[in-house]
Amino acid sequence: MREWLFGRQAVRESLRAGRRQPARLLLLEGAARAPIIDDITAAAQQRRIPIEKSSRQLLDRILGHEEHQGVALETSAYPYADTHAMLELSKARQEPALLLLLDLIQDVHNLGSLFRTAEAVGVHGVVIQERRAAGVTPTTVNISSGAVEHLLVAQVTNLVKEIERLKALDVWIAGLEAVPGARPYTEANMILPLAIAVGSEGAGLRRLVRERCDWLMSVPMRGQINSLNAAIAGSLALYEALRQRALQL
Amino acid sequence: MREWLFGRQAVRESLRAGRRQPARLLLLEGAARAPIIDDITAAAQQRRIPIEKSSRQLLDRILGHEEHQGVALETSAYPYADTHAMLELSKARQEPALLLLLDLIQDVHNLGSLFRTAEAVGVHGVVIQERRAAGVTPTTVNISSGAVEHLLVAQVTNLVKEIERLKALDVWIAGLEAVPGARPYTEANMILPLAIAVGSEGAGLRRLVRERCDWLMSVPMRGQINSLNAAIAGSLALYEALRQRALQL
Repeated sequence: MREWLFGRQAVRESLRAGRRQPARLLLLEGAARAPIIDDITAAAQQRRIPIEKSSRQLLDRILGHEEHQGVALETSAYPYADTHAMLELSKARQEPALLLLLDLIQDVHNLGSLFRTAEAVGVHGVVIQERRAAGVTPTTVNISSGAVEHLLVAQVTNLVKEIERLKALDVWIAGLEAVPGARPYTEANMILPLAIAVGSEGAGLRRLVRERCDWLMSVPMRGQINSLNAAIAGSLALYEALRQRALQL
Repeated sequence: MREWLFGRQAVRESLRAGRRQPARLLLLEGAARAPIIDDITAAAQQRRIPIEKSSRQLLDRILGHEEHQGVALETSAYPYADTHAMLELSKARQEPALLLLLDLIQDVHNLGSLFRTAEAVGVHGVVIQERRAAGVTPTTVNISSGAVEHLLVAQVTNLVKEIERLKALDVWIAGLEAVPGARPYTEANMILPLAIAVGSEGAGLRRLVRERCDWLMSVPMRGQINSLNAAIAGSLALYEALRQRALQL
């Protein structure tokens, strides 16, 4: 299965990460020079990937109305990982596990933003469910600025079963949910081996996921509106984990 | 100047905030009942705003391809405030000022998300520049889930001059920018009367803005990609201010 990645940062990071097999690179003919285009061209040449000049019409036809920024990379499918590899990564880095579990996030903007923050924080992996949720597509790669190309992402058939598996391996599960009794996220212990579960905007965590959480935590709100964007709330929790772990060092 | 707000939460919050003069409410005829629609209807009746049942065709024609969710409110323009009102609000609440300054943010998703976080944190106001930046439009109101209807937002002709005015009033200016020498945002003092300046994705803060900052602060990143989404970075800084101020109490 091949697909077309698009967007300058997405294509550059996919080539830098080197986890896919690219078939060819299309560059808009007559485009102004830019350092990032030079980076992309150099990386493609180094890996002996054919580079073709392309008309705007051809790029538009291949990519629909996506904002391709004059760059497209035909490449193999996204290389999903599994949670075993994530826990191996945390051992290799000698860090307590830090995973992000996404419970049926369907908004591609939120998904892409969460991938980008997860990569910036240095999580060991992100787990998404295969059905009823957005996956890693060229659009999410682009929204994540290519960050997801560097991340371990597992796509599982049943998130609830995956949570049980992680708990059996001594990973704690923290659910992010603004419910009475949830502790403020800044007061939760995020130094433990941890997986943070984030629900979809609107519906939140499914009951079966929520019931398996070791604790629930919430982001305090002091305004008139009692909800935050799911990508923002998840990012706050991830950065709080990073802050607590940095203080421990 | 009238405009059409759309989206259930946006319309509900505009009616709740009560800062505009609505002319009429359109509701999709035959729509399924929902508690939020009942809230909207009750608020409109209480304020004696005419309610009209509308066909999907009419709503689509008025709102283009926006996701209106079967609700549209014709109302007066957004009531911009000024920084004087924001500082008065901080005095009235007996809190050190906390403002958000947006330097040429053009992405409406980022702008709407930042309004939503700013409202949740309880900032005293958000300052945007009139030209070369996105403003408060029905689309931003919708993306903010209506949060901006509760916020004080000033639209100024020259952000640099506004910064100088704030500094003369003893407000400190903290620029969020990932440059060498910037201190980690969790180590900056955010208990002082403060305005946090956030630049646009890609370009960051303009030089004239950056030079007027009392300090620069950055969000640490541990991955391969050295940038965060502007709305995420700004939200992290706002919540860090809230965390520090809560510890002070």
